[in-house]
Order: sequence, then C-alpha cells, then structure tokens
Amino acid sequence: MVVILKEDRRQEQMDNLTNWLKSLGIDIHVCNGEHQTILGLIGDTSSVDINLIKALDIVEDVKRIQEPYKNANRKFHPDDSVVVIDKEKDIKIGGGNFQIIAGPCSVESIDQICAIAQAVQKSGATMLRGGAFKPRTSPYAFQGLRGDGIKLLLEAKKITGMPIVTEIMDISQLPLFDEVDVIQIGARNMQNFELLKELGKTNKPILLKRGLSSTLQELLMSAEYIMAGGNENVILCERGIRTFETYTRNTLDISAIPALKTLSHLPIIIDPSHATGISRLVKPMALASAAAGADGLIIEVHNDPARALCDGAQSLTPEAFDDVAKSVQGILPYAYKLN
Amino acid sequence: MVVILKEDRRQEQMDNLTNWLKSLGIDIHVCNGEHQTILGLIGDTSSVDINLIKALDIVEDVKRIQEPYKNANRKFHPDDSVVVIDKEKDIKIGGGNFQIIAGPCSVESIDQICAIAQAVQKSGATMLRGGAFKPRTSPYAFQGLRGDGIKLLLEAKKITGMPIVTEIMDISQLPLFDEVDVIQIGARNMQNFELLKELGKTNKPILLKRGLSSTLQELLMSAEYIMAGGNENVILCERGIRTFETYTRNTLDISAIPALKTLSHLPIIIDPSHATGISRLVKPMALASAAAGADGLIIEVHNDPARALCDGAQSLTPEAFDDVAKSVQGILPYAYKLN
Amino acid sequence: MVVILKEDRRQEQMDNLTNWLKSLGIDIHVCNGEHQTILGLIGDTSSVDINLIKALDIVEDVKRIQEPYKNANRKFHPDDSVVVIDKEKDIKIGGGNFQIIAGPCSVESIDQICAIAQAVQKSGATMLRGGAFKPRTSPYAFQGLRGDGIKLLLEAKKITGMPIVTEIMDISQLPLFDEVDVIQIGARNMQNFELLKELGKTNKPILLKRGLSSTLQELLMSAEYIMAGGNENVILCERGIRTFETYTRNTLDISAIPALKTLSHLPIIIDPSHATGISRLVKPMALASAAAGADGLIIEVHNDPARALCDGAQSLTPEAFDDVAKSVQGILPYAYKLN
Amino acid sequence: MVVILKEDRRQEQMDNLTNWLKSLGIDIHVCNGEHQTILGLIGDTSSVDINLIKALDIVEDVKRIQEPYKNANRKFHPDDSVVVIDKEKDIKIGGGNFQIIAGPCSVESIDQICAIAQAVQKSGATMLRGGAFKPRTSPYAFQGLRGDGIKLLLEAKKITGMPIVTEIMDISQLPLFDEVDVIQIGARNMQNFELLKELGKTNKPILLKRGLSSTLQELLMSAEYIMAGGNENVILCERGIRTFETYTRNTLDISAIPALKTLSHLPIIIDPSHATGISRLVKPMALASAAAGADGLIIEVHNDPARALCDGAQSLTPEAFDDVAKSVQGILPYAYKLN
Repeated sequence: MVVILKEDRRQEQMDNLTNWLKSLGIDIHVCNGEHQTILGLIGDTSSVDINLIKALDIVEDVKRIQEPYKNANRKFHPDDSVVVIDKEKDIKIGGGNFQIIAGPCSVESIDQICAIAQAVQKSGATMLRGGAFKPRTSPYAFQGLRGDGIKLLLEAKKITGMPIVTEIMDISQLPLFDEVDVIQIGARNMQNFELLKELGKTNKPILLKRGLSSTLQELLMSAEYIMAGGNENVILCERGIRTFETYTRNTLDISAIPALKTLSHLPIIIDPSHATGISRLVKPMALASAAAGADGLIIEVHNDPARALCDGAQSLTPEAFDDVAKSVQGILPYAYKLN
Repeated sequence: MVVILKEDRRQEQMDNLTNWLKSLGIDIHVCNGEHQTILGLIGDTSSVDINLIKALDIVEDVKRIQEPYKNANRKFHPDDSVVVIDKEKDIKIGGGNFQIIAGPCSVESIDQICAIAQAVQKSGATMLRGGAFKPRTSPYAFQGLRGDGIKLLLEAKKITGMPIVTEIMDISQLPLFDEVDVIQIGARNMQNFELLKELGKTNKPILLKRGLSSTLQELLMSAEYIMAGGNENVILCERGIRTFETYTRNTLDISAIPALKTLSHLPIIIDPSHATGISRLVKPMALASAAAGADGLIIEVHNDPARALCDGAQSLTPEAFDDVAKSVQGILPYAYKLN
Repeated sequence: MVVILKEDRRQEQMDNLTNWLKSLGIDIHVCNGEHQTILGLIGDTSSVDINLIKALDIVEDVKRIQEPYKNANRKFHPDDSVVVIDKEKDIKIGGGNFQIIAGPCSVESIDQICAIAQAVQKSGATMLRGGAFKPRTSPYAFQGLRGDGIKLLLEAKKITGMPIVTEIMDISQLPLFDEVDVIQIGARNMQNFELLKELGKTNKPILLKRGLSSTLQELLMSAEYIMAGGNENVILCERGIRTFETYTRNTLDISAIPALKTLSHLPIIIDPSHATGISRLVKPMALASAAAGADGLIIEVHNDPARALCDGAQSLTPEAFDDVAKSVQGILPYAYKLN
Repeated sequence: MVVILKEDRRQEQMDNLTNWLKSLGIDIHVCNGEHQTILGLIGDTSSVDINLIKALDIVEDVKRIQEPYKNANRKFHPDDSVVVIDKEKDIKIGGGNFQIIAGPCSVESIDQICAIAQAVQKSGATMLRGGAFKPRTSPYAFQGLRGDGIKLLLEAKKITGMPIVTEIMDISQLPLFDEVDVIQIGARNMQNFELLKELGKTNKPILLKRGLSSTLQELLMSAEYIMAGGNENVILCERGIRTFETYTRNTLDISAIPALKTLSHLPIIIDPSHATGISRLVKPMALASAAAGADGLIIEVHNDPARALCDGAQSLTPEAFDDVAKSVQGILPYAYKLN
C-alpha cells in the first residue's frame, strides 16, 4: 500500500499515523520527494481499512498495490481453477471446460421441469437450472415453490442425470440444499456476507453472481469470503450491471470476462438472459461471451405451451435454445484464451 | 397497467394474452387507435410481472399506472407517517419531527461508546448509532464486536437514556435485537427479501437504507415487504448512490427527499457520512438535506484521542459534530415542506 | 404517442391540453378506462416535446410508440444499409461487409504513419485511421498536428491506397477534409448539433461515435440529424460507455450491436481500444464484437520503436494487431446475423 | 505524479521509461521498497499523458499528485474568485455574492421575454436567461429563434436593465454574442474544446455547465481551457448528472458545490430546473443548493397564459418562482461557507 501525504502536515500528525500503522504490524518505508512524501506500507495490509487512511487529514491519497484478495488471486495461483461439478459424469467448469446451464426461471411443476430438462439436455446443456426460492422486487409476486421446488429439481435430476443449480436466499434454507449440486448466490446477495461465510464452510460449488453495481474487485472480495472459509469451488457469473441505458434491462459487461481471468484463476460464466431481459439478444450475447473466453453460460428456457405467446420473453423456447447452443459450438474453437 | 401492442400481431397471440390476463382476474379495456392498440388492465395488477409482459413478442411496451406499492403509497395515506421511537421520551420521526442520530462507525469499548453518546447528546443528537455487526468488503477486516457490541450499546442506552440504532445482517441475529430501539437494514441488504419479511413480523422501527444502485421505486418496494408483514414503522434512508464520479465515495441524491415525500408518507433521513466518505463534506450535505425537507440525519462521530490524526475522516470529531448539529438548527425553520 | 392522464384533473386543463395538441396538427383518440384516461396521439408526433407533456400537471406519464427517428429507422428501411467508402476498390461497410480500420492514435510523422499503414494493410486492415485534430482533456496536452496531420494521412493514402478516417472537431475545419474518405465525429461531439447539421450537407461517409453517456436512442437521433440533411452515409460506432466500474476506462456495451441492428439499418462498428483502455483486452473484445454481429472494428496500432516499452498500452503493436485481425477472421463465419 | 512499477520488469523496459520521461524534462526520484518500486516524477507533469503511462507493460498504476489544472486550482489562488457581470449595477457572482438568473427555456417573442423579465426581476432575479440557440435531441424539434432570439433578449435588457445569459453552440455564432453579458456553454458542449479555446480569447463571463457524465476534474479541465487562453471569468454550473435513476431527468449532485469550492476558487451555481425536469422539485433543490453554499441559481420561468396547464412543467410560473426566490433568501444567512 502506498500512502501519499499532503505537503502541509504537522510532524505530530505524521508520528500519529506511523505509530498507528506500526501498531498494526506494518513496516513503513518513507520516500521523501521534493514536493511530496510517500509512505510505502510493507507487510500484510489486507486488513488495513483503505477508506480510513484515505480520510486522514494529512493524506492526499492511498493506493493499494497488492490486491486485497489472496485466495482468488491469479498471482498466487497462476493456473486456471477447474471446479468439478460431477466427478462421475466428468462435468467440470474452467480451465478449458465450457458448460451450458439451462432451465426455467421458476420451477413450476414436475412436468414442466422434466420436459425442459430433457429438451435442453438434448441440445447440449449439461446442467439444469431452476428457481425454487425467487427474489422478487414485489412482496405480492410469486415467491417460488421454495422447498417443494427443490424437490422437483431433484426429481428432474433423477430422471435426466443432470446436476442442478438453484439459488439460496438465506442461511436458514441451507439444509434444503444438501443434494443440490451448485448453490447459486443471486446478484442481490453478492454482499450478504453472513451467507457467504456460511457457504464457505461447505464444499459445494458456489455460483456467485456479480451485484448490479459491484465492481470486479468487490466480486472477487465476495469470492474471497467463501474461499477464506475453505471452500475453493467458486464460479463467478457476470449478469449485467446497472447503467443509464434503459433499452436493455442491464448492460452486460463482457470485458469482465478477460478482466476477471487476468485478476483471478476462478472460472467465469455469463447469464445473457438476465443481463439483457430481451430474448432476441440472448443469442448474440451468448456468442460474444463465448468468443471473449467465458467458461460457460447460464440461459433461461421455458416450454409452457399455454404461454406460446411468450416467444419474445427473456426465456427462450427449447427450439431457440437449441439454435443458441449449437451456434456457440461454432465459436468455441476460435474463442479468446489468456496466454 | 397499460399494455401497448405491436402492429404486426396475430389474432391468436392476442387471444392468448387476453385469456392469460383474464385468468389472473384482470379485466381488459381495449383501445383501438389508428396505428396502435392499447390494453388498459383493470383490477389488482400488483402481482402481475411487468417484465414478463414487456418481453412478449406482440408487446411494444408496458406502463404501470398505479404504483406497485400500496402500504407505502402516499395516495392511500395522504398524511405523513410519524414513527414513534420512544413514547415516554417523546422521540418520534416524520410529520415535522426532525431527529439527529449520531455515533461511531463501530462500537469498540464501553468507554468509547459512552463518551461519544454523552458528547453527541449534549450537541442535540437524540438517538445513538453504533455498528455491532459490520458488513465489510473484506473477510480479513474487523467484523464488529457482534453480540458484545449490542450489549455495549445497551449499556450506553442505560447511562444516557438514548434509544439505540444498530444494523442487523442476518435473520439468525434477530434475538439479539430484542432491546434495540431501531433496527437498521444496510444498503447491501435492502433487497435481502427474507430478512425484510422477517422484520415485517416485528413491530420494531426499521431504518431501511437505499441500496447503492436501487431506484426510488425499488426502495419503496422493499419498504412494502416490511409493511406487507404488518410492520408500518419504516424510516427510509438515502445514503448515496453509485455513479461514475469518484471524488466522493458515492453521490448523495438529495432530490430523493422531496421525490420520496411525493411518492410515500414514510419519513426519510439522510446519511451524509457514508454518502460522501469525506468528513469536510458532512456539514454542507447535512445543511442541504435539512433544507430539502429531510426528517432527520444519521452522522458518524468518533472520539478516539489516540487517532487524533483522523480529523479528516468520514467520522467527525464531537466538536465538529456540535457545529453541524447547531448549524442544522438554523436551516430547519426555512426548510422545504411538501404542501 | 400515448399520454396517460392523472385521475384528479379539471376539465379546463384537459381542454387546454387537447386544444394545444390539435394546434400542432395532431389528432387525439381518447380512451376512458375505469381508473385512468389515456390519450392516443395520432399524426406526426416527431416534433412534439415529450418532456414538456410529461411535465404537465395533469399528465401521469407519456410513452412514445413510434420512435422519433425516421431516416435511421429499420421499420421504414428493412434492409441493411451499405456505406460505400471506395467504389473502385470495392470497400464498403454493412450488409455483410466487415472492415477493419486501424492506425495510430495521433499522426506524428510521414515515416510513422506510412510504416503503420503498410503494416496494418498487410494484416488485413482496409482503412487507415489517425488523429490529426485531437480532443484532449487538458489544454496543455499535445493537440495534434491538425491540418498538417491530414496532409500526412493523404500521403499515406497515396502510397498505400487505403481510404483514410480522421476526426473533425469544428465546422471551421471542414474545408481541410475534402479528400478525407470518412469523417469521424468523436464521442464528445456526438451532440454537437451544429456540426452534425453541417456534415448532413456533405455526402461523405460519417463515422459517428456514441457519447460516453448517450443512450442508443440519442445516438440514433444524432444520426438522424446527419441524415435529415440528406447524407445517408452514416456508420455508427460503439466505443464504451461511462459506468461505475473503473477497471476498464469505459464499459464496452456489446449488446448495442444487436440492439442497434434491430432499431436501425445503419452499419455499426466497435472501437475496443478506447472502450477498454487496456491493450490486452483489445483482442477478446474484438472477437466478442465480431461474434455479436458488428460490421467492423476500429483499432489503434502504433509502431514507435523508441517506445518499445509501450507494449501494454491502448495501442497494439503491429504484431499484436496481426494476431487480432487474423483471429477475428476465424469468428466471422459463425457470427450472429439478424435474420 | 507517482508511478508504481510492477515487480516483474526488465531493466531495459525501466531504462526506456526513465529515458523517455527525462526527454520530457521530468526529473525522477526512485523509491525502492521491498515489494515495489515507485517513481516520483518531479517537474511540470501537466502535459504528461497519464493514460499512456498507465498502459505501459511495466506500470502497475499511476497517481497524479498535483491536479492537472493550474488557473482553476484553489491551491494557487486561495481566495474566492468574483466574476463581475455588470460593474455599474454592481452585479457580481462568487465570494459571497449570490445571484439568481431566471427566464424562459426559449425566447419566443418580445412580449413573452419582457413580461417574464419584469416578473422575475420583481421577485429578485438579477440576470435574465433565455435560449436563442437551442440544442435539441431531435432535428425535427424547434431549434430556437437563433440570431433573432438574441435581438429579443437585448430588447428585454434595454427595458429592464438586466444582464442577459444565453447559450452559444458553435464558434461561428460568436459575433452575435457581442452584447451578451454572459455566454453559456451547455452540458453537451462542455468538451467542445475548439469552442472553449475561442471563448478563452474573449473577456466575457462564461457560464460553463457540467457535462452529463463529466467528472468534477473534467469540468475543471474545461474551465482551464478557457482560462489558459486568458479569460478568467468562468462560472461553473452543476445541472445534474446521468445515473440509473429515472424518476428525475438527471441526478443533481449537490456535493459538487462544496467539492468544487475545495478544489477551485471559481464560483459555482446550480440549475435545479434541468437537473430534475420536474417543476415541483425546483424549490427543494434550490433551497438545498443555497444551504450547501452555491453562489447562485439558474431557474427556468415561463408565463405563457395559453399554456396555463403547464403548472407542473420544468418551468415554473412567475408566481411559483417568486416563492422560490423568497424562500432561498431565508436559507442564505445559514448557508455553508468554506472556512
């Protein structure tokens, strides 16, 4: 960490600062320039509050040199992490393993989930997603089948053999996730630190979605919460950030793929369905994500014949999904690879 | 709700849509224009998923006419809500009652919290804030004294008589908040819907902070979650939103004060400390908030003599707080009032 | 245009509104619902100020049904536009014609511009870019060679035969652009309406960059300014938008590609160099752009051996560019196509 | 400027960098820490391209210590600047002089502009604003009376004695502004650098509006463009920035007032009309701006009796303006003052 001091400072303030830093076990290298003095902080600064130092009267600015994340940092783990989802079936993600996760927004019935599961599996999806606990903006909207939804997913897993991915919303729901293969943390819970800590104690693969207004560093710090607890099976997921543009529901930040691959060894997948909120944009964004080097996709698919009108919805029909999944295969051999 | 249809639609799609809407108990008024057809949806549309309809192939756009929040809506509750914090001491917020909440970022020791409490009380603060459970970006940073922190706050309450305000981070912590006067929901948990529902079952005053990238409507929908459960004691809090500007930590959206007062009857307070992250900006932003019609302020104050260097931090010293609190009193008689 | 009225309105206000609208030559279709009244505005509403109507006391909301752009609108021009850059050499963009524009940030010398031109041409670039007039944040920074820079570009064109693309900053510079093949309007001038109008009077191809905080509709309205003057040779360019994320200089909005293709028939190219500000991200973003259906790329390339250290800069070396250009060719056969 | 180098660098790269910097006349102070090497750049770094250095392969990060603006910088000009608008009438802004500028969005007729001028003057406005050249998103919208509009403003000035403020959109219009008292640069032209340079050659007071997505530093750099040309009469104006929130047209950044006053000596005024786009929010935002220490306000007022329905528009009626102007006077004695 580098602390740049203001020119007009009293020696007493300077002493207070250095004494306090030393009390945290940090060594200080002072660099006196003509117009400025810079302190190089040496030692483990990951627990130092950069905002506190930045706010000091005598401090012009503070710059972290070493990223505050360790477990998630590629510097200390140069090879891609591979998260194993199902050892027997050899389903894994990262390090060259590309997977498509597909399924409905909400689990609604055994017929619905099984029909979709079988359809997407035929098109090449290797994991089944489906919402049981649904974070809804309105308390009056359908909140998901909850525990029963998970049971239906497990039924579909039994029939198709597909590992299942579903979202947790609160620590108290954890016992219901015993047989779930991948636990999803939604964008709104990316900084639910108590939940992250609890999931760090499990060894389940965790699909961690980026918050709507979270920086890449904050996403990696949330991954770090899980990994610091001992669970290294973290899959990052970009699903659109909030910007001023309103044509798409959110703005899919595809540059997050190579950026996160530079910063971290964790696999990164993309959710083009939620990012755009427009089904006809799912295909081009899926292709772009694959081209930029993503390790996978998570795509919403529905098959409700009674809502045949929903062709244009965020959810694709199985037929449209089939086209997306096959088109992505064309891109993969030419996709970007780091190094 | 108004649904604007595309010109190029098949009758079958149109029938599917109207049948589905009718199955939800909604009446439809069709308005055929020369170039467009508009459906007026009549009935309780608060449970209708606007995103689903918007995504339909035959739909050009959807416009909600009635806000999706009812309990929080000023239309159905024209008078300002007054949240009573302490009946005996007559401490209440809203409807012309302005309160200043002050205290340290984190509770650290009994001496610290009592000294600050007494200092801010003398300057005019009527409630004491202090973090026991601390949401920290880094898993390696101090996470607060947790349960012990709450005990120290209750000690300070006993000594000073000040009601206390402190943040909850997870449902499982709720039993520890029995004697806490106001439960704070932090910006990162504004859409932790399970937590909101649980707090809706209590009758505690809830201080609900706006998320970093939450719209005003989303904030009101989160209030609605609490109120739908039966707890009407919600205090809204604007604490800065995330924008491209990096000079301040966040951008304090002061227009949220009159905007929320127009939309809702709930009291609204401002946190200038977190919004700006710069202590010298706390005073001007406190004055501006009061002038725009806020019902109160929540301000960080510290008194650590060992960190005398922290003059410039997000936390004010008790002396600086005294100046802010008194200056705000000058503004109040001239502050904006809705109607 | 659909105007949704408030419930509590006086007949007099209603009459004023309808009379005023009629005075603009607009017919009104009134749709009385149980809880709301909606006005359908029929006729040419493109000159109606939506903000003015929205602001009326009796108006709840206004919704434009027909986009305010005509010439740029795909509805009235279903086929892709093809902008011809050089008829003889058959260089054109759009409608399946993909072009790579490459060259240095600033034109510095005849040797520099010719060396780069020849290098990028060998790698497959078909147009040469180079800054002569440079918009710089600081008045103390190098402002470009200006008129002399254009002369050097024309020299390079003579030698290589490559059409040249360079930025105009003010109407007064227009005479210098007589032999320039494509005139670029930078992001900061996207809403310099006087300049747009002037360029609308020429028949030059215009490369119109999206402003840092411009919506897709605003970009199309700026294209409309040029086209309304009679110049239909507009090439749109997405070059990153301003968001809260600071890792990349801007956030490249790749979903703008299929979105703009849906809304408009104009070709759309991508500038991955300025969008990311990080040279190692240029390749993955170029691949992603091609996959999402872009009609071309504009990429910064430098060859200054004296600044060999600049490997990591926004500008690629010719060698790195060669890799990008060839990798993009692999993606193109599998790229997204709108219908 | 402080350059933080990466650990893994070759000596050759290091030599290239230092030689290049020295060739720019910059001295280098090397500070070798255990884990990092930092270069302190000594000398006039205002012309050094920070983005270029940041992009170098061996550079981890770059931090500017001295702000890149000089003339606008409070460090070199500790006292508030006072911009004199009319010496005879003693109308000046800044350094404790608070002024309200008011008038219609567009100048429409001599009757309209005079009636509004007289009304707002009676309520305490000291300068008259009115748009002659109008930047409109649509080419089909009314573009203002242009030169004729300026003549009408000058008529109104003759009658009322009020100095006039109106917007320029292009260098070619400058001769028409000879008798205009304050030339406004709109948000969309904040980085029209050629126009800024041209206005720097005049000695007219310039009202410089912040761009919709411009940082405070970028605003000050644009002021610097004007001042570097010799014109120090710059008045800054915050008018809302673009964020994700759509309730207000833009988000008024009131913290920009004390922030800019810290960074610069230039006066800063606020435009609550454009920032919010909602007339009922103009009053609370005007009060908040005054409380936060603004040097003035610029407010839209209209008096068109034929559009009596427009009560709710961005433009206030003269009656509503009278209330705002008087309410602001109540706040001023209690407003924030730097130091």
